[in-house]
Order: sequence, then C-alpha cells, then structure tokens
Amino acid sequence: MSATPSTPGPIEYRDASAAVRAVFDDIKRSRKVDDVNNFWKYLARDPATLKRTWESVREVMTPGALDALTKEMIYVAVSVTNGCGYCIASHSAAARKAGMTEAMFGELMAIVGMANETNRLANGYRVPIDAAFDK
Amino acid sequence: MSATPSTPGPIEYRDASAAVRAVFDDIKRSRKVDDVNNFWKYLARDPATLKRTWESVREVMTPGALDALTKEMIYVAVSVTNGCGYCIASHSAAARKAGMTEAMFGELMAIVGMANETNRLANGYRVPIDAAFDK
Amino acid sequence: MSATPSTPGPIEYRDASAAVRAVFDDIKRSRKVDDVNNFWKYLARDPATLKRTWESVREVMTPGALDALTKEMIYVAVSVTNGCGYCIASHSAAARKAGMTEAMFGELMAIVGMANETNRLANGYRVPIDAAFDK
Amino acid sequence: MSATPSTPGPIEYRDASAAVRAVFDDIKRSRKVDDVNNFWKYLARDPATLKRTWESVREVMTPGALDALTKEMIYVAVSVTNGCGYCIASHSAAARKAGMTEAMFGELMAIVGMANETNRLANGYRVPIDAAFDK
Amino acid sequence: MSATPSTPGPIEYRDASAAVRAVFDDIKRSRKVDDVNNFWKYLARDPATLKRTWESVREVMTPGALDALTKEMIYVAVSVTNGCGYCIASHSAAARKAGMTEAMFGELMAIVGMANETNRLANGYRVPIDAAFDK
Amino acid sequence: MSATPSTPGPIEYRDASAAVRAVFDDIKRSRKVDDVNNFWKYLARDPATLKRTWESVREVMTPGALDALTKEMIYVAVSVTNGCGYCIASHSAAARKAGMTEAMFGELMAIVGMANETNRLANGYRVPIDAAFDK
Repeated sequence: MSATPSTPGPIEYRDASAAVRAVFDDIKRSRKVDDVNNFWKYLARDPATLKRTWESVREVMTPGALDALTKEMIYVAVSVTNGCGYCIASHSAAARKAGMTEAMFGELMAIVGMANETNRLANGYRVPIDAAFDK
Repeated sequence: MSATPSTPGPIEYRDASAAVRAVFDDIKRSRKVDDVNNFWKYLARDPATLKRTWESVREVMTPGALDALTKEMIYVAVSVTNGCGYCIASHSAAARKAGMTEAMFGELMAIVGMANETNRLANGYRVPIDAAFDK
Repeated sequence: MSATPSTPGPIEYRDASAAVRAVFDDIKRSRKVDDVNNFWKYLARDPATLKRTWESVREVMTPGALDALTKEMIYVAVSVTNGCGYCIASHSAAARKAGMTEAMFGELMAIVGMANETNRLANGYRVPIDAAFDK
Repeated sequence: MSATPSTPGPIEYRDASAAVRAVFDDIKRSRKVDDVNNFWKYLARDPATLKRTWESVREVMTPGALDALTKEMIYVAVSVTNGCGYCIASHSAAARKAGMTEAMFGELMAIVGMANETNRLANGYRVPIDAAFDK
Repeated sequence: MSATPSTPGPIEYRDASAAVRAVFDDIKRSRKVDDVNNFWKYLARDPATLKRTWESVREVMTPGALDALTKEMIYVAVSVTNGCGYCIASHSAAARKAGMTEAMFGELMAIVGMANETNRLANGYRVPIDAAFDK
Repeated sequence: MSATPSTPGPIEYRDASAAVRAVFDDIKRSRKVDDVNNFWKYLARDPATLKRTWESVREVMTPGALDALTKEMIYVAVSVTNGCGYCIASHSAAARKAGMTEAMFGELMAIVGMANETNRLANGYRVPIDAAFDK
C-alpha cells in the first residue's frame, strides 16, 4: 500500500505564482504590513479561494455603517463561539490594533459567554418566539 | 405504561411566587415594559436560575466600555452563529430598539457570515498560529 | 426544467418491509409502546441505518455503570447544546418518564447553560491547560 | 505601523487586587485547593466577570436535586460536544475526583457520541416532533 | 417607550432596485428558474451582500474538480451538522435535482451522523494526532 | 484531599485483551495497515464502544451508492465544520489516500466555508422555507 501523501504547507512569496503574489501585494498594501499572515499563505494553495476570500474580507471589513473596531469585535465573538483557535488569536490581535482596550475585551467576553448560555436556556426550555418580535 | 408527563409551560405574573414576581418587577422597571418576554416566563419555572440569569444579563448588558447597541449586536452575532431562533428574534429586536439601522444589520450579517466561513478555512487548512499573535 | 422531486416522508408499519418491521417490533417490545416515534419512521427510509442506529442506541442507553435517568439527562444536555429541536423534545420526554423532576430539569438546564458560557470564556481568554490535568 | 500589543496573560495571587484575591480565597476554601486553576487566573483580568462567573458556577454546581458527580458529567458532555479542550481536561479531572470510574466515563462518551449522531439524523431527515411530546 | 420596529421581509422583483434585479436576473438565467428562492429575496435587503454572496456561490458551486452532485452533498453535510433548517431543505432539494438518489441520501446521512459521533469521541478521549498524519 | 487521578492513555496491542485485539486485527486487515491509529487505541479503554464504533464505521464507509473518496470528503466536511483537529488530520489523510487531489481539496474547503457562511445568513435573515422545498 502506498504511503500517506505528505500534508501540503504554506506558500511563501518567493515560491508564489504571479496570481498569488498579486493578492499578497494587495494585502500588504491594504494592511501596511511587511508579510501576510499564515492564513493567506495556506489559502494560497488554492489561488481562486485566496482571491475570492481576500476580496470578500476586504469588502466586509471596510468601515461603513460600523467602524473597524466594532467589526473586529464581532469577528472575535463568532470565532470564540466556534472555538477556532487561529481566528481567536488573529482577530483578537486585530481588534487590539483597532483600539480594543482590556475593559472592552472583558465586556466582549462577558457578552459572548452570556449569549452562549442564554441561547441554550432558550433551546432547553423550548421558549416560543413572542408575537411582538414578529410584527 | 404510564403516559408521558405533560411539558411544563410559562409562568404568568398572576400565578408567580413572590420571589418570581420580584424578578419580573425588576425586569419591567429596568426595561420600561409592561410585561416580560417569554424567555423569563419559562425560566421562572426555576426561580434560582431566573434570578441568577437576570442579574447576570443586567450586569453584562449595562453600557460600560461598550455601548448598548454594540452589546446587542454582539449578542445577535453569537445567536446567529448558534442558530438559536428565539435569541435571534429577541436580540435583533433589541438591537433595532437600541438604534441598529438596516445598513448596520446588513454589515453585521456580512461579518458573521464571513467569520463563520474563514473559521472553517483556518480549521481545514490547519493553519498554525503566527508567532506575532502570541508575543 | 424538471420539477423538484418531492421530499420523502415517514414509513408507517403497514407499508414497511419485513426488515423494517423487525426493527419496529423490537423497539415496541423494548420500550413497551404501541407505535414507534417519528424518528424511527423517517430512518426507515434507509433500513441499514435504521437497524444500526437502533442497535447502537439500545446498547448505549441500557443501564450499566450509569442509570437510565442519568443517561437521558446527558442526552438532553447534548441536544440542547446542539439546538436539535426534535431531540430536545423527545429526550426531555424520555428523561421525565425515567424520573426527572422539575428540580432536576432546572439544575440540568443551569449546568448546560453555564458550561456553554465557560467553554467560550476558556476559548476567548485562550487559557492553557493546567499541568495538573495532564499528569 | 505600531506593533501588535502583547497578549495579556494570567494574574497570579501575588499580583492580584484585593477584589481578585477575595474571589481566589473563596475558590481555594470551597475547593480545598492550594491554588486556583488557570481558568480563574485568566478571568481575573476582568474582576467583575471573575466574581460573577465564580458565584454562578458555585451556585450551579452545588449538589441539590442532582449530585456532584452527575453535575460534572453533564459539564463534560457539553464541553466534549463543543470541543473545548481546556474544559474537557478540567471537568474530566473534576468528574474523576467526584467518583467517575472508567466504566462511567466510557458510558458517558458513548452517549455523547450517540446523541451527536442522532441529533444530525433528526436534522437531516427533517423529522417533525411527535404530537405526544408536546401534550 | 417606542414600539419595536417591524422586522423587514423579503424584496420581490417588482420592488427591487436595478442593482438587485441584475443579480436576480443572473440567478434566474444561471439556474433556469422563473423566480429566485427566499434566501436571495431576504439578502436583497443588503445589495452588496446579495451580489457578493451570489458571485461567490456561483464560483464555488460550478463543477470543476468535483461534480455538481458531490458539491451539493457536501453542502448538505455542513447544513445538517449546523442544524440550519432552511439550508437543509434547499440544498437537499438541489442535491436531488442534481441526481441524488434515496440510496445516496441514506449513505450521506449515515456518514454525517457517524462523523459527528466520532468527532466527539476524539474530543472526549483527547486523542493526540498520529505522527503519520503530519509528515 | 486526594490527588487528581491520572488521565488514562492509549491501549497498545501488547497490553490489549483478546476482545480488543480481535477488533485491532480486523482494522489492520480491512485497512491493510501494520498498526491502528491513536483513535482506536484510546477507544480501546471501552471495548464495547471500540467494537460498536469500528463496526459502524466499517459499515458506513464501505463503498456503496457513494464511492470511498466521496465518503471521505463528506467526513472531512463535517470534521472541519465542527473544528475537530484529530478528525480533520486523520480524514484528510484518508481522503488523500483515496485519491483526493489538491484541486479537489481546494474545492471541498471552498464549499465547506461557503456553506458555513450561508447557513448563518439564512439564520440571521430568518428566511422562511420556500413552499417548493416541501412539496
């Protein structure tokens, strides 16, 4: 029987195709960083997903009706709920860069914890939706 | 064989104990509403959980380093990620009352969707945490 | 374009194959009931899954080191965490039949809520596992 | 561009405020331990969440209608379902201290696995709730 | 106190802006259908999310290294795991249109159930990753 | 107070009971491997769960209406959605052995990400199921 194929790793800039380099360059310019995070280096194994994901993230995270800090805290809330270690680390760092203080982080975690608790109380008690919420 | 016991329902104010009424009164005063939502009427079947949950929610949701609207949007982000129908309906309504516009709601949903997507891309590509996030 | 194929429904005893009837008969005997629940009638569309699932559930739920009531409450804890409406309804009913009182139900829900909360606090604060838990 | 702010770590007793020390002392007394777990040292970064979470956990986990062992096993069931590594390690250890044998652990895991499976079968087959569960 | 704002509903073609109609028209052309599903009518409340989501879904679901049927079954597997009622209904219908037989559906559900079970057994037993999987 | 009991580890073939060895032998024969994975060595602590899980996995993963590669990719989709690190590693390796190319892996991840996103958009916008999906 053949051996297990080795697990592919990240794509570094020096080894990247022109299409991948174009996305990396845009990330570096947009974020004013010298190198892209591991997330993008791994996605680079599939250039179509790299490009689509970066363009979607850039569009969604650009400040609009919500500011950059609020957007990053919402990203953290989802990542903590899902237990994605990578995403918690990277988006907590991004939120701190965008101005999240320790007091804000504490309140964010408190809400995420409480919402996960009351979500299950609502499930377990089988609470029907109040008519007022549906009008 | 004995019949299935009937499923207990909500506790209305008129049928509530003094301990439950005290919590209901505090909710109505704090929120300036005439009646409490179904969530509290169902929790009232366990007065200790009703009291602890209300006091925790009140403490966590009081504006502090984060304002009321941001807090409600974080609550919605968690509830949507978990797929809790009751909580999505009730906290979306609360967020709208706190000032969430359609444009804000649209951006909130866009981030929640995107975060749920990239959480799984990070999982699937088995992306290691960048050293920069851990210093 | 062709129409959407209609969604298949439950298999009733009168329409069931001999293989499906054998499983239905075993469920009815084991549980001392006149008819099987919807869950089994839907699974009957795939007789292999019906048989394997029933035999696994029967083996797992038979009282052993843990009694029937504890087992049903654990089933409810998982179902509430996942937000499976059908499973919450059916296993809460089974737990009540096995002796779960309102006080037990209240404590069960309180723990499920609290565990879902502290799971996220541990995620969000990125708490490393204490050496003591790994010795 | 400014550097990423460093990630805050745990608060040790010697560095803790009086408010945090009061909670740590209560945990050590209640649990008859010489030091608190990492979970509490990280939560200590937000004294309000530390206090509220400890008081809630203490209230919820005190033996009542359910005994200490049953409560810890339910906590493990939720933590395993959510995939919270820290919580699985800490609450499995707590359950063993409370008397969980290997046989009990094996049955607990078997139920958690089975419930996670049948939750999805019920979702996928779109099984409607039996009228009997709602009366 | 002000009333709860009413919950916004779907956008029908006749009420849609030119930008929304352009997306609706593209969906109808691509899928050879007379009207778009509710999902798109609700997303239309945020034209940017409508456009980005449709273009991403179209790109991702176009047959490539994987055929249309395999792609739809993977979509169903995720939706069943997450318990998204709308997505289970819509993508099961899409999979049937793409050729999913009852036998395929049965095997799909069996795998989804089994994977959800063994995911939790791996979590609960805290199984370390074999060196062979990382080479 | 007594020390925390040590966490049990894997069962190696040389230390296994006859019942466990019989399952290990069957796994090695079926999969044409020299040793079983850690997953089975940990499950071996509960011989009944080891046997039941192996027999179920073998039955479910045998090629039928779906081929081996499609089955492994569905397993990966569920494991990535749940964030089970062990299962992602082991079933990605199995899928590669069964013939999954990098292009297939890229498309698989793209669908899993997209489905996790649109599942939440459907939740958050509270999209009702189209009548066409229920006929």
